Amino acid sequence: MQVGICNQYESVRKQSVRICQPLEVEDYLVQPMPDASPPKWHLAHVTWFFETFVLKPFLPGYQPFSIAYEVIFNSYYNGVGEQHPRAKRGLLSRPTVADIFDYRAYVDRHMESLLVGKISPEVSFRTTLGLHHEQQHQELLFTDLKYNLGHNPLSPMYQQGKPVPDVQPQTLNFQEFSGGIYQIGVNAGDGFAFDNESPCHDVLIRDFCLSNRLVTNAEFIEFMEDGGYQRPELWLADAWALQRSEEKHYAPLYWQQRQSEYFVYTLAGLAPVNPLEPVCHVSGYEADAFARWKGARLPTEMEWEVAANSQEQTGVFVEDGFFHPLAADTGELSGMFGNLWEWTQSSYSPYPGFKSFQGQLGEYNGKFMANQLVLRGGSCVTPRSHIRPSYRNFFYPADRWQFTGIRLANDV
Amino acid sequence: MQVGICNQYESVRKQSVRICQPLEVEDYLVQPMPDASPPKWHLAHVTWFFETFVLKPFLPGYQPFSIAYEVIFNSYYNGVGEQHPRAKRGLLSRPTVADIFDYRAYVDRHMESLLVGKISPEVSFRTTLGLHHEQQHQELLFTDLKYNLGHNPLSPMYQQGKPVPDVQPQTLNFQEFSGGIYQIGVNAGDGFAFDNESPCHDVLIRDFCLSNRLVTNAEFIEFMEDGGYQRPELWLADAWALQRSEEKHYAPLYWQQRQSEYFVYTLAGLAPVNPLEPVCHVSGYEADAFARWKGARLPTEMEWEVAANSQEQTGVFVEDGFFHPLAADTGELSGMFGNLWEWTQSSYSPYPGFKSFQGQLGEYNGKFMANQLVLRGGSCVTPRSHIRPSYRNFFYPADRWQFTGIRLANDV
Amino acid sequence: MQVGICNQYESVRKQSVRICQPLEVEDYLVQPMPDASPPKWHLAHVTWFFETFVLKPFLPGYQPFSIAYEVIFNSYYNGVGEQHPRAKRGLLSRPTVADIFDYRAYVDRHMESLLVGKISPEVSFRTTLGLHHEQQHQELLFTDLKYNLGHNPLSPMYQQGKPVPDVQPQTLNFQEFSGGIYQIGVNAGDGFAFDNESPCHDVLIRDFCLSNRLVTNAEFIEFMEDGGYQRPELWLADAWALQRSEEKHYAPLYWQQRQSEYFVYTLAGLAPVNPLEPVCHVSGYEADAFARWKGARLPTEMEWEVAANSQEQTGVFVEDGFFHPLAADTGELSGMFGNLWEWTQSSYSPYPGFKSFQGQLGEYNGKFMANQLVLRGGSCVTPRSHIRPSYRNFFYPADRWQFTGIRLANDV
Amino acid sequence: MQVGICNQYESVRKQSVRICQPLEVEDYLVQPMPDASPPKWHLAHVTWFFETFVLKPFLPGYQPFSIAYEVIFNSYYNGVGEQHPRAKRGLLSRPTVADIFDYRAYVDRHMESLLVGKISPEVSFRTTLGLHHEQQHQELLFTDLKYNLGHNPLSPMYQQGKPVPDVQPQTLNFQEFSGGIYQIGVNAGDGFAFDNESPCHDVLIRDFCLSNRLVTNAEFIEFMEDGGYQRPELWLADAWALQRSEEKHYAPLYWQQRQSEYFVYTLAGLAPVNPLEPVCHVSGYEADAFARWKGARLPTEMEWEVAANSQEQTGVFVEDGFFHPLAADTGELSGMFGNLWEWTQSSYSPYPGFKSFQGQLGEYNGKFMANQLVLRGGSCVTPRSHIRPSYRNFFYPADRWQFTGIRLANDV
Repeated sequence: MQVGICNQYESVRKQSVRICQPLEVEDYLVQPMPDASPPKWHLAHVTWFFETFVLKPFLPGYQPFSIAYEVIFNSYYNGVGEQHPRAKRGLLSRPTVADIFDYRAYVDRHMESLLVGKISPEVSFRTTLGLHHEQQHQELLFTDLKYNLGHNPLSPMYQQGKPVPDVQPQTLNFQEFSGGIYQIGVNAGDGFAFDNESPCHDVLIRDFCLSNRLVTNAEFIEFMEDGGYQRPELWLADAWALQRSEEKHYAPLYWQQRQSEYFVYTLAGLAPVNPLEPVCHVSGYEADAFARWKGARLPTEMEWEVAANSQEQTGVFVEDGFFHPLAADTGELSGMFGNLWEWTQSSYSPYPGFKSFQGQLGEYNGKFMANQLVLRGGSCVTPRSHIRPSYRNFFYPADRWQFTGIRLANDV
Repeated sequence: MQVGICNQYESVRKQSVRICQPLEVEDYLVQPMPDASPPKWHLAHVTWFFETFVLKPFLPGYQPFSIAYEVIFNSYYNGVGEQHPRAKRGLLSRPTVADIFDYRAYVDRHMESLLVGKISPEVSFRTTLGLHHEQQHQELLFTDLKYNLGHNPLSPMYQQGKPVPDVQPQTLNFQEFSGGIYQIGVNAGDGFAFDNESPCHDVLIRDFCLSNRLVTNAEFIEFMEDGGYQRPELWLADAWALQRSEEKHYAPLYWQQRQSEYFVYTLAGLAPVNPLEPVCHVSGYEADAFARWKGARLPTEMEWEVAANSQEQTGVFVEDGFFHPLAADTGELSGMFGNLWEWTQSSYSPYPGFKSFQGQLGEYNGKFMANQLVLRGGSCVTPRSHIRPSYRNFFYPADRWQFTGIRLANDV
Repeated sequence: MQVGICNQYESVRKQSVRICQPLEVEDYLVQPMPDASPPKWHLAHVTWFFETFVLKPFLPGYQPFSIAYEVIFNSYYNGVGEQHPRAKRGLLSRPTVADIFDYRAYVDRHMESLLVGKISPEVSFRTTLGLHHEQQHQELLFTDLKYNLGHNPLSPMYQQGKPVPDVQPQTLNFQEFSGGIYQIGVNAGDGFAFDNESPCHDVLIRDFCLSNRLVTNAEFIEFMEDGGYQRPELWLADAWALQRSEEKHYAPLYWQQRQSEYFVYTLAGLAPVNPLEPVCHVSGYEADAFARWKGARLPTEMEWEVAANSQEQTGVFVEDGFFHPLAADTGELSGMFGNLWEWTQSSYSPYPGFKSFQGQLGEYNGKFMANQLVLRGGSCVTPRSHIRPSYRNFFYPADRWQFTGIRLANDV
Repeated sequence: MQVGICNQYESVRKQSVRICQPLEVEDYLVQPMPDASPPKWHLAHVTWFFETFVLKPFLPGYQPFSIAYEVIFNSYYNGVGEQHPRAKRGLLSRPTVADIFDYRAYVDRHMESLLVGKISPEVSFRTTLGLHHEQQHQELLFTDLKYNLGHNPLSPMYQQGKPVPDVQPQTLNFQEFSGGIYQIGVNAGDGFAFDNESPCHDVLIRDFCLSNRLVTNAEFIEFMEDGGYQRPELWLADAWALQRSEEKHYAPLYWQQRQSEYFVYTLAGLAPVNPLEPVCHVSGYEADAFARWKGARLPTEMEWEVAANSQEQTGVFVEDGFFHPLAADTGELSGMFGNLWEWTQSSYSPYPGFKSFQGQLGEYNGKFMANQLVLRGGSCVTPRSHIRPSYRNFFYPADRWQFTGIRLANDV
């Protein structure tokens, strides 16, 4: 068992470093908006997680690498102590990138010394949690870095990436599912899952249908050209208030119009918008408005999970090396996993009987159950081993910097 | 039938005027925060509603009272046209209060001329909707006026109000309800209801229990004195962010501490906090934090409705003339109706199969289904005839200026 | 002497009431922006001034009308005590307008009982100061009321006003003045003056010239049509930053463009812009940009005073009943007094040897000597007896709601 | 002549690089507030200045290094074109620091090829201006870097710096100067000067006195301990408004209180406040409040220049390697040059007859003549060759991140 967890530890930790390999030192520092933390901070914060929740309580005699880091790299754990202000993570030129790599090495060395011995179930659980946590930040490394480079006037490339195959997406149609009582969520002990996926419970669902694939850029351009962004009847009131403010949008994030053509920033640089690909980097509000325009709606998270439970968990993940969504080519219900996170209409709220993790780790998920929407399925920058049908991601409905797309639903 | 609707029309319209009788001209004007519109605006907007949705389309030859009012008194109906900015309603010294009463008289005269004749089902529906709409604004007249007077350094009284009876509330305990499949919501045709209460549908609920009464001031003071407002582990993340900002709170709205005693502004003026009364004017965030502190949770709106369906619809309403919540004295599950709106943990979202009202009236409810929580049961300033078990009120979780209270729930 | 001051007291106090005669009760309440206080507040604040600085210290046994008013109607005298927040003056529906008139009557009664007796020089000085203070607020009654009515979608009229005579303004030319050492300012004892006008002192000035009249609307439209508002090279950096923000302007305050014609709100209602009249309601930044566009500059306050000292103090004042600037028709240097306040390029700063009034009254003027510009000469809503060549008015360079205009200057 | 300018060019350009030698790559990037640009940006912007104003117009066939840099490194020259938003300079991870050094080398190579030939007076003037411009940014490198490192929780040191000598400052006293007509400013042609120092002109000054040295930390602590920051009567109204906002201060910038002792961040790291040293990093508002508390005032810039004209131009400059102000030890009027910029009470405004530089370079100084105060004399991070008695520096009265101190003045 320890061999297993040691190997996982080493593998996940190396992957974070691998993601950063194409970066210049300067890229590690920038925080282009409060939500998009600098890569340096991500690399240190996930390390702080192991130090705080595993090494300090469980490795006898462990000396923290730096007292100051306890505050600087605490994200939001009030139970642990004060935090450096989130919006000011990009203002710290020190510790340097080299310091952070030293920090990682120091913590890795101690984690390995702990893991080679006999470890308690709690150490095993916390280490596993720390690895899933680091995988979440691996995805954020991509999204936050993309936000940085994508707003740079030089439009620098992160990496060439694998060439995107040229595929004709299927015709949009809807696949029906029968209503009834279904089980969703998971129970503790059924393999790793976050607390917010528990407990496993019955839900009563009506007949519904889901679109066989994600909405494409071509379809979204139709919406835009039909005045979608200017028609209040398509928008939720809070979304329309944004559309009348300084925050108004005219297209998905990273799109630019030059004369009559649309371009989009990708991690391989600026490129013409490919009409066949799924539309990406839309907010929950945009997804909702598009669905209304199309005479459809967004799925609930229960519908999504019921549908996903009958699918193979294949799809485009970070290991595929595209860092970009691909057009769907086959299957009755393609792309439920990977490719793009799918907005649901469900507010992020506790499952009946929900109990958060014990102690300080209780702040991991539960306290965010307000004002956010659930997204499902993972994306092209999610690690393949990280995702499950029951996995609940959550973002504010106005957020656009994640790899988010639109799957339509409807009543039958 | 027309007699019925004529009488209802007259009765509801007169009630709005009656509510304003204790006011000085000056009180009609003030908008103490963007959400709390001036009484003058309320009186005119509900009139605009009849003019816009009934008279213009259905009374041949109707001439609007004023072209300018079409913009000034449009609340949020983009389908109708532009709107005077919400936050600037209190900056309009003209039209005067007298002008508004002229406007009301003009529209009433025309409405009556329409209603005495034979009217179509659509006119009947829209008139009834307009009356329910006006009842909603009657409640807002109280809450917005209270916000104004309650923030005035003179603490002026609205009206003496009926003396609040001195009652010892019951001991707090929890009443159990069995889980199972229940029907909630209503179907069109089962008497008047808003679109957001439809359709009637089955829900699957687990065993749960509800507190037999609302949380009292005494209990809330315990929470405060236990450091409730200062303990991050009790608060949702978004709520705690507010608590660390300029918006932080230390007590319910309208409370003041003088030495060791708490005072509260009521519509009868400033008074000592009565520990036996239900705590009032708390936000959804405060309700949630209190529940967590108490080892409980807020009910879902489904649980609430299931429990309410078994209750008599009695309680303290505006007609009782207290304009203030009363301590609960009897009953196994007291105060489900009237007294105070009860926060639920349920996000305001569409029922499965939801269809909004047709046409411009579709903006009435549906577009607000984001970022808000459902409240249930009505309050001491709600008209008695306005409430139903299926009635869904909705406010943002940070809102405190409505007559809102806390009923606890728990798993069994 | 007492007869004199009694008469002056009565006369000035009555004039404030007379200005408000055309108002509806509602108009007394509105504060359309933080700088534009409600008429009710002005009427009470000037009364508070007499109560605080004359009656309380000098009328034995005087009982304040209301303890609460001491805070509510204190503008900015920290030495006196706390103040109701300036931006929230318009949120007070109580005290009512009738209460304020009672307050005025109460204070007037006591002031008269004090003034009929033998009074000390200090009482005489403070009463006189209070009357000049009330005259300043009489001008603000006009400007603040205009801001309110002028932003109301009904464009209501304050009063018809005397018809503006149809006069052809003179050709713009420049009158030269010889440089040298001149005396400006006044010394205490030379009749009433504010502390900021003292001491009288020598200044060294170079040859300069002033335009014979104010800039007209026609000339300002030329600037606009030459792209004046869009050309950064014409604007100070701080002004251009505003022009690139939400605060950007395209025309003077109160102007509206309808098709190709300009309209302007005046206290007599909306009217076409008269090209012959002086341009009014421009900021110091707009005045500066216009001057630069014209190859000229704004005068310094020393130049202005030197030129004004050689002029008769005639002009259009509030007593003339236009409430609007008139075109200049005669004279070599017309309109130096009355008509419009003239922006200077001089920062509002202390004269050499400046001493502020003693005690709490020291806050009257001196503490504002930062970030503001001096304006000179009075306007069409200034009381005629209020102005002097040495009078220094001051506003922030971005302010536009006063009756402000542009006189050009140049080096010789 | 060309040899001279070639040498100067090389010397000044090298000095910028030398200042950055102690930096980590990460330090080049950070913009801790909008006013404090990243070192990388400074190094590139001064290079852009030569490219834009010298090479493009005067070196035939010159190819810009990068089209994108024309926008990114334009500070505020609207006449040249668009600018990357000032507040977002710290969000650019690319171009990298290495790219910027390549840019500098490219421009230097071309500048040298231009300067070795015969050059026109205009090229000579612009090159000289560019060097003075670069010297200004050398000072900003220190101040902006200090703001960054000084707000880092690790308090990293920039460089050890030369040890500060232990000197007892003189007793504070005032030296008198006779009033009269004095000449201040310079005329074009009298050696290099900025346009804002011209023309040379007569001013009329009254007798005045200046303190013999700068105010010390000990004296400023007295002010603090006397409640200086809490007493509204000491503050200008705009300053007091800040003191009642989120921006309130309790001590000079970079001070921290730990128990009863004050510490201050210096470029050599955190250190106890030395009571003998001049107080540093105070705003113009703090300087003004201190002076009022002391019964004195700030000098006018005319008074300062008149006094300075009689002094030797010696003092502590950047070449002395302290990067910190020193206590004054000798002289009747010590420290007029170097050590700390001295706040004056004079608004930054045009001298009579002022003409800005021709063309695009006219934006260099003139457009900032609003809302700022003049500072005089240079500081311990100013290059010695950069300063003159007539030199006018200018900052907003609330600014504190420059090396600013207080010299008192008074009337006689």
